[in-house]
Amino acid sequence: MRIAQTILFLFLAIAVSAQKKPNVILIFVDDLGYGDLGCFGHPIIKTPNLDKIAQNGAKLTSFYAAANVCSPSRAALMTGRLPVRSGMTGKNHGVLFPFSTNGLPKDEITLPEVLKPLGYSTGMVGKWHMGFQKEFLPTNNGFDSYYGIPYSNDMGYDTTPTRTSSRFYPKLYMLENEKIVEEGYDQTKMTKDYTSKVLDFIEKNKSKPFFMYYAPNFPHVPLYASKDFLGKSKRGLYGDVVEELDWSVGKIMETLKKNNLEENTLVIFTSDNGPWTTQGVQGGSAGLLKWGKGSCWEGGMRVPAVVQWPGKIAPNQTFDCLSTTMDLFTTIIKSAGGQVPTDRVIDGNDLMPVWTGKAKEATETFFYYHFNQLFAVRKGAWKMHLKSVVPYVPEIIVYQSPLLYNLENDPSEQYNVAAKNQHVIKELQALADEHSKGMPTVHYIFDDVDNELLAKMRRN
Amino acid sequence: MRIAQTILFLFLAIAVSAQKKPNVILIFVDDLGYGDLGCFGHPIIKTPNLDKIAQNGAKLTSFYAAANVCSPSRAALMTGRLPVRSGMTGKNHGVLFPFSTNGLPKDEITLPEVLKPLGYSTGMVGKWHMGFQKEFLPTNNGFDSYYGIPYSNDMGYDTTPTRTSSRFYPKLYMLENEKIVEEGYDQTKMTKDYTSKVLDFIEKNKSKPFFMYYAPNFPHVPLYASKDFLGKSKRGLYGDVVEELDWSVGKIMETLKKNNLEENTLVIFTSDNGPWTTQGVQGGSAGLLKWGKGSCWEGGMRVPAVVQWPGKIAPNQTFDCLSTTMDLFTTIIKSAGGQVPTDRVIDGNDLMPVWTGKAKEATETFFYYHFNQLFAVRKGAWKMHLKSVVPYVPEIIVYQSPLLYNLENDPSEQYNVAAKNQHVIKELQALADEHSKGMPTVHYIFDDVDNELLAKMRRN
Repeated sequence: MRIAQTILFLFLAIAVSAQKKPNVILIFVDDLGYGDLGCFGHPIIKTPNLDKIAQNGAKLTSFYAAANVCSPSRAALMTGRLPVRSGMTGKNHGVLFPFSTNGLPKDEITLPEVLKPLGYSTGMVGKWHMGFQKEFLPTNNGFDSYYGIPYSNDMGYDTTPTRTSSRFYPKLYMLENEKIVEEGYDQTKMTKDYTSKVLDFIEKNKSKPFFMYYAPNFPHVPLYASKDFLGKSKRGLYGDVVEELDWSVGKIMETLKKNNLEENTLVIFTSDNGPWTTQGVQGGSAGLLKWGKGSCWEGGMRVPAVVQWPGKIAPNQTFDCLSTTMDLFTTIIKSAGGQVPTDRVIDGNDLMPVWTGKAKEATETFFYYHFNQLFAVRKGAWKMHLKSVVPYVPEIIVYQSPLLYNLENDPSEQYNVAAKNQHVIKELQALADEHSKGMPTVHYIFDDVDNELLAKMRRN
Repeated sequence: MRIAQTILFLFLAIAVSAQKKPNVILIFVDDLGYGDLGCFGHPIIKTPNLDKIAQNGAKLTSFYAAANVCSPSRAALMTGRLPVRSGMTGKNHGVLFPFSTNGLPKDEITLPEVLKPLGYSTGMVGKWHMGFQKEFLPTNNGFDSYYGIPYSNDMGYDTTPTRTSSRFYPKLYMLENEKIVEEGYDQTKMTKDYTSKVLDFIEKNKSKPFFMYYAPNFPHVPLYASKDFLGKSKRGLYGDVVEELDWSVGKIMETLKKNNLEENTLVIFTSDNGPWTTQGVQGGSAGLLKWGKGSCWEGGMRVPAVVQWPGKIAPNQTFDCLSTTMDLFTTIIKSAGGQVPTDRVIDGNDLMPVWTGKAKEATETFFYYHFNQLFAVRKGAWKMHLKSVVPYVPEIIVYQSPLLYNLENDPSEQYNVAAKNQHVIKELQALADEHSKGMPTVHYIFDDVDNELLAKMRRN
């Protein structure tokens, strides 16, 4: 009788735990390059905590941000949709600025908005960058709580004296939910402040399923490290900042472990776009990939990514199949037992079948946008470039003959093999045409700016 | 009494094992680039067995081959000396060819020659490339046994139809000790044949300390994989070949484990120089490093390296301090309880204090040679370039103002900071002058060639 009871209890315990919704911690850093983590081959920067996530779970080596700059990349992550669908892009502007007058459209459905009805506590810490007026803030987009700087850390007049635009910006401020809690924020505190807010959130919400979206403003310039990390890395300030972010991730993992939450928590770490290479040694490294942030070469949009979920994902794996931040939208929702919105196009696919070894890939196509224009298309190993830009040159290069690279055989995009593969060009051109034909005309939100301020800035 | 006996037995067992000389397996592949392993950030090539060595032990991220091409690099590894000291270089030739008439000088002391008197069985499998006439072969240079191709795998007239020189070569042959056992060797068998010879050696010598020098001819072009690996990697034939080498390493590790030898065996894996990038997709990747084989930029001489010795080296470490293949000479000899030769300059340093956490670095200087000329000098983070070459262009560029890079802050050698650091230039120039002044005039062995054949080749 006793044994039977025990078996019944165990059975129930397993059944309950099988149904238990996973916690999700989504860490989305800013401008970290493909080559900047130890496990992605950086020779100097030490990232033991992130490397350990890869060892406990998986490293994704062909994972893309959905845009080559901040705001649209973040919008895609939160909506599961290409920015050209939601209008979170522009013809004239690549991101939102402090003088932008608009933000994420009200009718977009965000990841936390889907998770909340499923019983999730939803918290955000860090950089939002999808509109800074009250109505656009995280707490009006599905998050129970928010702590962070609502845009980039160089968008304060006191932060980047070398940028001509910065003098038209307000002082850099820190928000708690919708209130400014600090003006002229001292960025040397930022990683520590953010970390303690994330840990608080975990501690407060550990008894129910939670979703924490942690979006550090670093390693975007201007770079600041706390005194514990300043001068610690041989890679200079950039290394210090990345190593402090790794420390921050380590604290989170420690807190999960301490609370016995590790097994049932999906942790995802990635970057919003490639490294800002034009910043010299203050920018990161794309490793073997070409170029960086702002371009549609691989270095601009392929980002380092590591994931772990010990209850579901086997350790020490490397997945080289194509996947994107939009897939995270779908993957997280499905893992939480929910459904993605069906009244609109969602560009994401569920990655769990791949991560659990049940499928070889979730998708084989990806569309690389620069602002509102389609610059390149990938299908399987093949990537076709239609257009390109050069840093600091406004003109767009339109290739009379598209370029073609085999990203598997030639990950550094060194050998244009278009001439010998015209059938592939034809196939990818048809795919691009079909994709563009299906794209609705939408209002481009990033073009909504305070024209007076903009004109002033452009004159100066 | 029984307990006392057990304690005594345990004590003796520990004492014996502490004194027990380690086995050493030194794996030295050909033309593998810094970025070509999973643990060094390659997105496509899968190297789980090599990644596991890094996890069981350490990854060396600032480790150098002592030359930018094969023969001198191998001579440095076997002698612990810069090739300009032994004469294993040339004014006109960078490596030994099948029409070379000379080889490693008799008065050089090789690594196996030091290990043999210490009680080691010494075996070699693979590419020698330090002279192919009988007197220069491994078995006349300290190895009990040899199986391999004595030079590069493109040095047979039947192997590389595109090389004008190859028609003057004999058919590619396989040696067993000093005898040709196969002519017109089928290279698709090579990795399997080599592997089985290495495993045989381990099985035969497992009861005494052994030294196995395994120098695969791959991934040097021409590339061949066995049918089990052909088409297996998405990275094409280069990936197939590297993955078969990883398999080979896996078989070795399996054999060590099976024989309970893992704990007391120092396993070292590295490459003889950077990737042959001018071979297009048949060449490897230097990752974030600049250029490849044949250059004195980092991509030419910094190579991927992983080591394990569970009895001594803690797991999961990354060492970014400077070290070289010449240090392996000293490290292996010291680990075996021996002494390096004292009658000559040895350029190597013992790395065990670094690998066991007792020292931060073993050396801070490195001298980059191209043929017999000093091209660059590194001290700590600083690297000064005095001269340079461009692929396929015979002229040497001599910098009127030396270039200076900070390799820690700028591992990709992108930003020449000479102008602002003239004091560093001065210091490195003095170091270079002192080094060059101390260099004896020696006969350059690589210039000894069959001039008749050479003249023929040059005419064609």
